[in-house]
Amino acid sequence: MSDVVKKFAPLFEPKSIAFVGASSNPLKWGFQIPFNLIEYGYDGNVYPVNPHESELFNLKVYKSISAIPEKPIDLAVAALPAEMTLGVVDECARAGAKALIVITAGFSELGGEGARAEAEMARIARQSGMLVVGPNCMGVVSPYPRSLYCEMPAVKPEAGSIAMASQSGNVGATIMRLAMDFRLGVSRCISTGNEAALHMEDYIEYFGEDARTNVVAAYIEGVDDGRRFLNVTREASRKKPVVILKVGRTAAGKRAAKSHTGALGGEREIFHGACNQAGVIEVADAEELFDTVAAFARQPLPRGRRVAIVSEGGGWGVLAADACAEFGLEVVDLPDDVLAQLDEFLPAWWSRSNPVDLVGGLVPRGLVRSAEILLACDKIDGVIALGVGFLARRAAEYRRRTAAGKGSGLFDAPVYEKFAEAAIARDVENSKALVKLMDQYQKPMVIAADTISTVHVDENEALFALMDDGMLIYRTPRRAARAYARLVERHDFLTAIGAR
Amino acid sequence: MSDVVKKFAPLFEPKSIAFVGASSNPLKWGFQIPFNLIEYGYDGNVYPVNPHESELFNLKVYKSISAIPEKPIDLAVAALPAEMTLGVVDECARAGAKALIVITAGFSELGGEGARAEAEMARIARQSGMLVVGPNCMGVVSPYPRSLYCEMPAVKPEAGSIAMASQSGNVGATIMRLAMDFRLGVSRCISTGNEAALHMEDYIEYFGEDARTNVVAAYIEGVDDGRRFLNVTREASRKKPVVILKVGRTAAGKRAAKSHTGALGGEREIFHGACNQAGVIEVADAEELFDTVAAFARQPLPRGRRVAIVSEGGGWGVLAADACAEFGLEVVDLPDDVLAQLDEFLPAWWSRSNPVDLVGGLVPRGLVRSAEILLACDKIDGVIALGVGFLARRAAEYRRRTAAGKGSGLFDAPVYEKFAEAAIARDVENSKALVKLMDQYQKPMVIAADTISTVHVDENEALFALMDDGMLIYRTPRRAARAYARLVERHDFLTAIGAR
Repeated sequence: MSDVVKKFAPLFEPKSIAFVGASSNPLKWGFQIPFNLIEYGYDGNVYPVNPHESELFNLKVYKSISAIPEKPIDLAVAALPAEMTLGVVDECARAGAKALIVITAGFSELGGEGARAEAEMARIARQSGMLVVGPNCMGVVSPYPRSLYCEMPAVKPEAGSIAMASQSGNVGATIMRLAMDFRLGVSRCISTGNEAALHMEDYIEYFGEDARTNVVAAYIEGVDDGRRFLNVTREASRKKPVVILKVGRTAAGKRAAKSHTGALGGEREIFHGACNQAGVIEVADAEELFDTVAAFARQPLPRGRRVAIVSEGGGWGVLAADACAEFGLEVVDLPDDVLAQLDEFLPAWWSRSNPVDLVGGLVPRGLVRSAEILLACDKIDGVIALGVGFLARRAAEYRRRTAAGKGSGLFDAPVYEKFAEAAIARDVENSKALVKLMDQYQKPMVIAADTISTVHVDENEALFALMDDGMLIYRTPRRAARAYARLVERHDFLTAIGAR
Repeated sequence: MSDVVKKFAPLFEPKSIAFVGASSNPLKWGFQIPFNLIEYGYDGNVYPVNPHESELFNLKVYKSISAIPEKPIDLAVAALPAEMTLGVVDECARAGAKALIVITAGFSELGGEGARAEAEMARIARQSGMLVVGPNCMGVVSPYPRSLYCEMPAVKPEAGSIAMASQSGNVGATIMRLAMDFRLGVSRCISTGNEAALHMEDYIEYFGEDARTNVVAAYIEGVDDGRRFLNVTREASRKKPVVILKVGRTAAGKRAAKSHTGALGGEREIFHGACNQAGVIEVADAEELFDTVAAFARQPLPRGRRVAIVSEGGGWGVLAADACAEFGLEVVDLPDDVLAQLDEFLPAWWSRSNPVDLVGGLVPRGLVRSAEILLACDKIDGVIALGVGFLARRAAEYRRRTAAGKGSGLFDAPVYEKFAEAAIARDVENSKALVKLMDQYQKPMVIAADTISTVHVDENEALFALMDDGMLIYRTPRRAARAYARLVERHDFLTAIGAR
């Protein structure tokens, strides 16, 4: 285990947590954070601390951190008024806590007295060797190995391989919510806050060495030490993809960042240059960040930019072709032998070109059969597959109407159920076959579908079969192509540095 | 009623429909389309036609369209093998059908014999005066006045004000699915197919005059008559926003469009110039199309580009500020009197700038109170509000866990339910207050939140309260800012032509 990994263990894998400022008032963070921690199954020891309470969450409450019998505590979390915070930081250090998260806001982002208090916090951290996260942050998520969900928002993504460091708690929460919704697994998520002591650079360095993490994501308003940032991202991105959403790209954004966490954004061009040199993947939006890390978490890297598109519908194919070209992918001419193989089961009047247009699902298992032929071709580096789960969505829609008493009764329920089950089974089988092909050929297979429902009670089992295997369903062909292009970008970087 | 509106009534408001090629085989379009039609409550007369069947969907089946006693039929729909189609077109014309939708593919997109058959179809249409839609299309959706959902995909958006003409059936279906999921109302949707007789230009002309339609959307691979396209879009966009997703922007996309519907895309620059001249709003993706039409369907137009941002979380505010600047909006300096009013209820250490950062929901009703002050200011043209429905999402999440037997039992169910109901009620009240302010001040209020769940059974009532009032919840600040910028674009166009 490297020194960095060892150093961060008390923060990301704590065996005990003291919560200073624990409260019985459900409207306070001092209630909500320990509530989430326990509700989401943290299986280390939890010690609430508050001189005015005696029992909380069925746990004994301690008067102070030093009154806790277990010593030393791995991780302390503090959520108290700003003016009480510095005293608590000092007390935690004296009690030998190995790490401390300061949730409380009202420090350097305000300047003046707040900035001075934050500097003092940093001094205590340096002197004591205690890891200090924040202040002005939301907490930590770290499913391994103890189901640690110690955050202000109620978010519980499953365990997986994506790590996120965010200079905004709520952007971090956005990514965690997306991960929950799309069943994508997370290794770590840290809200870095004002970074009095620990900086973005430290977390990226740790993620780079953390064995649980395969993909590194970050939301950045500004970095403290540009040279160190370049070094750690360069080092990390040799081993795993590093995807960064950098804000403050405009004057308005820069001003907003300054008043948010006191970050000084620096010049866009310098940051961009550093990212480029380090092989960092830059994105412009939270959704794009998610789309991108999801691709890296599950897709094999392509060996080049030659892509084949196969689509259940013509328009989606055209949208994908446009997007591929715009994102620098080559919508490759299909070789004669590929055309000949597709001719065998596609109708005589099929388009005979890329995208392969399956003309509305007329061909049984058309997507799977086409995908296999395309993946097997050595002139094609990967596939974008469009349109899965139509039958399952139709079945879910019909079930929902029937359950709500809105059905026409054209089918009676048992007859329909039989039909629905067969249709869903077929869809699920096709979904699984696609992923299997991806794994077999070790080429990317990025899938998009509009059959993923957003707000309805829509159990689209064909999509869930994909999601349960770690696949993200992209909502549009454009988003699929954009994510795919990032895989190529990574391939190119690794090739350029001789690592592939 | 204008001539154009009168002409299109048999297609969009038919009193009777004959379905030629109706089938008892659930895997055929001849089954699925009339099934959808009846299932979704069409309340005119339906006449299945098939010489080999006697009863379908509890309806008598006719041997031919001429055998139907009701004469003339408003709308015929044909889904038969391509080689039988031309005969049916001729028969429909002879039987006096006023409109015909040809679902069947295999015509001009194949060239040769298919192209000749399609030309003949066009000739019959011209000679008879029968409206002919398609071939190679998916059907029509038109909730007014007879609940007409006559499409291949099982889509049933509610009645509303957005009309869509799509040269791809499945892109049209994507928009209809989004409309269903986000509860956005649709006036008409037509899949135009190969456009043998009726062209994109005709539908846009009709939508421009249709009293049910307030927003016109189109997916376009190519237009038949560039000059007429310019004229009808110019005319329509004087009255209502016209939003167009044009594909074939790249060589790869152009090739794909050609093999899809045989469309000749023409030069990107010429099309773009025409759109610009006509005041058309151009978009690049299906999601962006939806985001944009949703804004036009509900938001008042701003009187300028000065925007204020108010956010429950700092990072989202920064993302919004960057995006606003990138999309040409002015993140305005807040005047002193606005700052003074905000000072009255925000904590002493609030950022005192735009975005207004509510620092994580510490201030009760902070979003609503801030939004009112910002909207009332005559130096601000509209508001982007970020972060609604947190409590409702938390409550939904807790309910789901409890229902699944995964809860920690930290609360017992009745205690929690009481807490959840109060929290949800507060969230719902805030949502409604925001929309009320928008309507009262007649300035845009674009709302984004990440609390909208995508696949979970997540009844976020605070968001549903907005959606039921026609508001789209944008998933990211960037998408909100992008849609907002389109409102400004429309304002600028109307001002330039002296219509505002």
